[in-house]
Amino acid sequence: MIGYSFMGAAHSQAWRTVNRVYDLPARVRMTQICGRDAAKVAEAADRLGWDTHTTDWRALVASDDIDVVDICTPGDSHAEIALAALAAGKHVICEKPLANTVAEARAMTAAAATAGAAGVRSMCGFNYRRVPAVALMRQLVDEGRLGTIRHVRATYLQDWIVDPQFPLVWRLDKDKAGSGALGDIGAHIIDLTQFVTGQRITGVSAVTETFVKERPLPGASSGLAAEVDGTATATGTVTVDDAAIFVARLDDGALATYEATRFATGRKNALRVEINGSLGSVVFDLERLNELEFYDATRPATEQGFARILVTEAEHPYMAAWWPPGHIIGYEHSFTHEMRDFVEAVANGVDPTPSFADALQVQLVLDAVTRSAELGSQWTDVEQALAALAV
Amino acid sequence: MIGYSFMGAAHSQAWRTVNRVYDLPARVRMTQICGRDAAKVAEAADRLGWDTHTTDWRALVASDDIDVVDICTPGDSHAEIALAALAAGKHVICEKPLANTVAEARAMTAAAATAGAAGVRSMCGFNYRRVPAVALMRQLVDEGRLGTIRHVRATYLQDWIVDPQFPLVWRLDKDKAGSGALGDIGAHIIDLTQFVTGQRITGVSAVTETFVKERPLPGASSGLAAEVDGTATATGTVTVDDAAIFVARLDDGALATYEATRFATGRKNALRVEINGSLGSVVFDLERLNELEFYDATRPATEQGFARILVTEAEHPYMAAWWPPGHIIGYEHSFTHEMRDFVEAVANGVDPTPSFADALQVQLVLDAVTRSAELGSQWTDVEQALAALAV
Amino acid sequence: MIGYSFMGAAHSQAWRTVNRVYDLPARVRMTQICGRDAAKVAEAADRLGWDTHTTDWRALVASDDIDVVDICTPGDSHAEIALAALAAGKHVICEKPLANTVAEARAMTAAAATAGAAGVRSMCGFNYRRVPAVALMRQLVDEGRLGTIRHVRATYLQDWIVDPQFPLVWRLDKDKAGSGALGDIGAHIIDLTQFVTGQRITGVSAVTETFVKERPLPGASSGLAAEVDGTATATGTVTVDDAAIFVARLDDGALATYEATRFATGRKNALRVEINGSLGSVVFDLERLNELEFYDATRPATEQGFARILVTEAEHPYMAAWWPPGHIIGYEHSFTHEMRDFVEAVANGVDPTPSFADALQVQLVLDAVTRSAELGSQWTDVEQALAALAV
Amino acid sequence: MIGYSFMGAAHSQAWRTVNRVYDLPARVRMTQICGRDAAKVAEAADRLGWDTHTTDWRALVASDDIDVVDICTPGDSHAEIALAALAAGKHVICEKPLANTVAEARAMTAAAATAGAAGVRSMCGFNYRRVPAVALMRQLVDEGRLGTIRHVRATYLQDWIVDPQFPLVWRLDKDKAGSGALGDIGAHIIDLTQFVTGQRITGVSAVTETFVKERPLPGASSGLAAEVDGTATATGTVTVDDAAIFVARLDDGALATYEATRFATGRKNALRVEINGSLGSVVFDLERLNELEFYDATRPATEQGFARILVTEAEHPYMAAWWPPGHIIGYEHSFTHEMRDFVEAVANGVDPTPSFADALQVQLVLDAVTRSAELGSQWTDVEQALAALAV
Repeated sequence: MIGYSFMGAAHSQAWRTVNRVYDLPARVRMTQICGRDAAKVAEAADRLGWDTHTTDWRALVASDDIDVVDICTPGDSHAEIALAALAAGKHVICEKPLANTVAEARAMTAAAATAGAAGVRSMCGFNYRRVPAVALMRQLVDEGRLGTIRHVRATYLQDWIVDPQFPLVWRLDKDKAGSGALGDIGAHIIDLTQFVTGQRITGVSAVTETFVKERPLPGASSGLAAEVDGTATATGTVTVDDAAIFVARLDDGALATYEATRFATGRKNALRVEINGSLGSVVFDLERLNELEFYDATRPATEQGFARILVTEAEHPYMAAWWPPGHIIGYEHSFTHEMRDFVEAVANGVDPTPSFADALQVQLVLDAVTRSAELGSQWTDVEQALAALAV
Repeated sequence: MIGYSFMGAAHSQAWRTVNRVYDLPARVRMTQICGRDAAKVAEAADRLGWDTHTTDWRALVASDDIDVVDICTPGDSHAEIALAALAAGKHVICEKPLANTVAEARAMTAAAATAGAAGVRSMCGFNYRRVPAVALMRQLVDEGRLGTIRHVRATYLQDWIVDPQFPLVWRLDKDKAGSGALGDIGAHIIDLTQFVTGQRITGVSAVTETFVKERPLPGASSGLAAEVDGTATATGTVTVDDAAIFVARLDDGALATYEATRFATGRKNALRVEINGSLGSVVFDLERLNELEFYDATRPATEQGFARILVTEAEHPYMAAWWPPGHIIGYEHSFTHEMRDFVEAVANGVDPTPSFADALQVQLVLDAVTRSAELGSQWTDVEQALAALAV
Repeated sequence: MIGYSFMGAAHSQAWRTVNRVYDLPARVRMTQICGRDAAKVAEAADRLGWDTHTTDWRALVASDDIDVVDICTPGDSHAEIALAALAAGKHVICEKPLANTVAEARAMTAAAATAGAAGVRSMCGFNYRRVPAVALMRQLVDEGRLGTIRHVRATYLQDWIVDPQFPLVWRLDKDKAGSGALGDIGAHIIDLTQFVTGQRITGVSAVTETFVKERPLPGASSGLAAEVDGTATATGTVTVDDAAIFVARLDDGALATYEATRFATGRKNALRVEINGSLGSVVFDLERLNELEFYDATRPATEQGFARILVTEAEHPYMAAWWPPGHIIGYEHSFTHEMRDFVEAVANGVDPTPSFADALQVQLVLDAVTRSAELGSQWTDVEQALAALAV
Repeated sequence: MIGYSFMGAAHSQAWRTVNRVYDLPARVRMTQICGRDAAKVAEAADRLGWDTHTTDWRALVASDDIDVVDICTPGDSHAEIALAALAAGKHVICEKPLANTVAEARAMTAAAATAGAAGVRSMCGFNYRRVPAVALMRQLVDEGRLGTIRHVRATYLQDWIVDPQFPLVWRLDKDKAGSGALGDIGAHIIDLTQFVTGQRITGVSAVTETFVKERPLPGASSGLAAEVDGTATATGTVTVDDAAIFVARLDDGALATYEATRFATGRKNALRVEINGSLGSVVFDLERLNELEFYDATRPATEQGFARILVTEAEHPYMAAWWPPGHIIGYEHSFTHEMRDFVEAVANGVDPTPSFADALQVQLVLDAVTRSAELGSQWTDVEQALAALAV
């Protein structure tokens, strides 16, 4: 694993847990963790339970005793590390967004295709696909229970930088993060809705905004929390969007609205998706991730209603291995499910999803959104990278 | 009153009730109702409780014993009737949308200004402003409890024409209705959000769609329900939008998303508005119109949460005259409140709101949305009719 | 009508509305209203829209031009008035609880039986039976959709006397009100659950409590609100229960819990009922009276969930005459439905429900609860007045 | 650890995780696991990550390299194992209920007191005390935010044995389980409400029921799921309650209702608690365990409402070590928190809570409930074991 912060901790918990819960064809060993700061990575290795640690990701990638490289760094280093790892024949799991630019994502996708031909697997970590309620949504759409899809409305709302005194952390720096709310959380709802509907976004019209343009420089940070560097009085310029909103069309003509923001006071992690089809609708809310609302318009008129399905039954995706019905799981479990599927795919010699190509498709949407916003919300077609999208 | 269908019945219930609940400076008499079909208007007069009936709206408007004209017809006749009524010195209450075109709305606004100078009052019936929870939202914004407004997200979702066999009623005919979901229900969320925020929409980027382009011809209809004319096999062309989505900016820089649709399966009357400010947020849902959610970010960190306020206390707007706390009111009560405020304004010699000018401003937004959609979602500034908007 | 306060206003709104909404075999005239205070009843007649007024209920009951007597007084006068009205051959609608004692209720039931044989109709006003969602619950149980009923849990929670300085209004006086939370709101959940399940409560074990035993004397009051008499410094003793809780069994062996209280801070009118059967469950909440939650355990395992049915479709009980789907109704509409059913029953020459006998059965439960509480929660069988209960 | 089934797996996940998330004064080693079936315990040791395994719990308890014994077996063996472990000087964590009888619980409490004097710690595993929202409830009560407590209503509803063909697993056998819903899940709400209010239940009046008295014999089982032994045609008798309901009083005069059932169709793990005090109320639902509803009656009248607090902030109990705000945790995390507090208590030389004495107090309530139910719901005082209850 490369990176040991928020994503590093979340992935570690998943690697540590996956064989304890699921019966898998391979057993994971948490061998080596890498980070730039020697003291911190040593501490992280000890705390998170990795056998060894290093500050040299190239050495890690070249290690003989490593089969899988898990990339949990900020987006600006994804491409370089992933390309090296694939070249070294390592299976790669790379956090989202795949890269900070379309060009990088394209190069990674090409490399993944080449590596794939040689049996080296790659996957992008859109973990929310593995929330059981999301998998159930996908299943319902797939079975035709929603009919023709007419509307998608997707928001990912957070509020951790509403305070203008919140410092200029790396996620607010375009060089490191690529973009702001758009790439960080907007990418999730783009991928999730393409995955669930099985359709691609074909074009967008977008507005983005940076509400607070100067912020104090940061001191220590952890997860999404951070402190201002009390010794500094200087401020820095925010170079990413605070919020992005856009309207879109999907392959089959559905209308869609998207919103990603870090300025929705009171909304902590409100990834919410509603999909309306001619036969039914589904609603999902990440803050209540064990639930799915499903409206079945084929039921008798007097009984139609949004059913709150508690997605904790053994019959639900991923859930048979966990606790009895009604005993809910949390955010981190989506990573355990991700690792389960990844380990199974690698062991069984098949390609895991979402592929780098799927993630490139998300990147192309992000790119279209950015261009549309720059061009005064002009309608902007999304470049379609591939003839068929494996979702 | 002119018109006796859905709106006619709702307004009649309000006129019948308003003096029974509120202590007002004037008492309403339900004198005359007008409609095009003599038999039907006679039946309506009897059922709804009007003293007399006529098929000649010009005669009604000219009647000496009438002080107020209430226009409940489809939008294509609003302008002609309102202009005549104002010219005759009658106070006018006109259902929304004010008119089917900007030109008509402009003429009506000019006439209202002239009449107003002579003490003749006019008002457009955006009844949802009078839902107590909406009035409370306005009050919270007005008191600065939300701080600087960053985001507005507004949807008005219905599903009554999802079935392609639903007939081509007048609301699907551009000549009668002006537009589809956009003007019918989109107008409500435009007015409501401008009212609550006290800000105007300055520009939009929009997409509209007609999912079902041909429909059977209609037979009988009632409210939003209708039957197909079983004897006809011909179909007609839907000339209005089924759905409209747009992104927008408000005066002070907030980003906004809007969606109006009749294709959101399972959503019956889902006017939902969320507003995020730097200090707090509010959420409203018309299907639970007695509730308001309020997030106060100035509360202690451990206690912040969206509070579900049951807006049924005597201290809440409009509620002291109704039932004890927790005894909820319904959709129709918004009209009773509208009539209360109208009667009070007329009796006290002040201008009621929303004025025709406020309604023109909504019309200008509808117009910008339509033009943006026609121009491939191009960003389109909303013409600002007036220096100051009385909200 | 006798009485013009909270219930008088609610019933008046219903009488005024019922023919405007429903097509009925008879048209209601609001002829005469009666109250003890001449000035107040005159004001009420004018405001509520009654033709004439009187302070002499015996004269009213004897009036030749009156067919129906609607009793909206406190419980201590129900028996005397109802007996006189029935004797005079007037159809009677009497607010709940039927009486303050079992003896009175028994006398009224006997009189109603006698009168009924002569075609004189009587009904007790348990208005919540006519909330569409409650009627739908009954329908689902009746159709066997819940299977064998295992559990009932019913609460009616209010909080209007939490403040010890809230004055000693008539509802806190045993002579006037018969009992406190138990008879006022507990009676509603007893009737409602017996109605919905079609079963009777066979025995109870109860606890009651008066948390605040002395209160200031009252000045003006309205609905459930009241002011302290500022000139008085004396206090009075609360002679009724503030709260009553009991466990119970139903005819077919189901276990039930009941709670009625005026001390549930934050709960304004929280009549909530959940019923679990072997095949399904239903949940109702009066503060969201347009909704019913229905869990259908015969659905596929992955799709089971509590469906939030918005009970506003034309297919739902009572709703075809109101507004389009999703346009909600309020508390007062339950009375309009009650009057509809009463008028139809009288006009069609059939007995309306709930009958006085049904209401006596509720009274017998209240009595058993009171006795059990007095006997240290001893299990107390409910006397079963009648071989068959018409629910 | 002794036991490797549902609780064994849950505790293992917690032991495995606790040092990875929290910075503790000691590091846990998962040394030895014990179970009756040699093959199964070997498999469990391998899967759950224990160093060694045994079928001899006496040997385990005597092991020199073990400091802590974690008892996850059915209730009938708790006493014997705990007494032996304490006698051997091992710190003990024992799953709830503490024992199957008051006598056993009393013996264990005495042994714990003796051991405690020698620095040997003991704790009973009422894990729900460590759900952050529950800890927050306790904190609010402790700070006086609810004022005088008037009402407690607590339910723990499940539905896993509604089907009469569900087999006769050990939890339905009185010899193994002590009681049915009462001791299994009723014990949780008894402990939780005593913990949160800081008060003891002083008396109860109860009804219990076994709806399905004969069931097929079981084959394989896992968690709460089980299969019927297909080869057997014989059935066995259910010797425990399916449901228990009771009314109660707390120390300071509050009224309380309790319900524990396995027959609430659609309710999977619905531990729900509402507490009303003179100044505020709280509501908790285990199926949405990251949320707490808090009503603060000291807020302005127009703004009072139940605030949905998402208990995922760093300021909330236990949460600083987990994920960013809004990233929810699950059921299993309550065990991680339990182990954190246990490890800290042991390392710091203080007594963890809930103590065996606290758990005995729960047992005394269970006993009073059972006796009351046997005596026709007669009011039954709860024996108060101890002068002061450490909650």
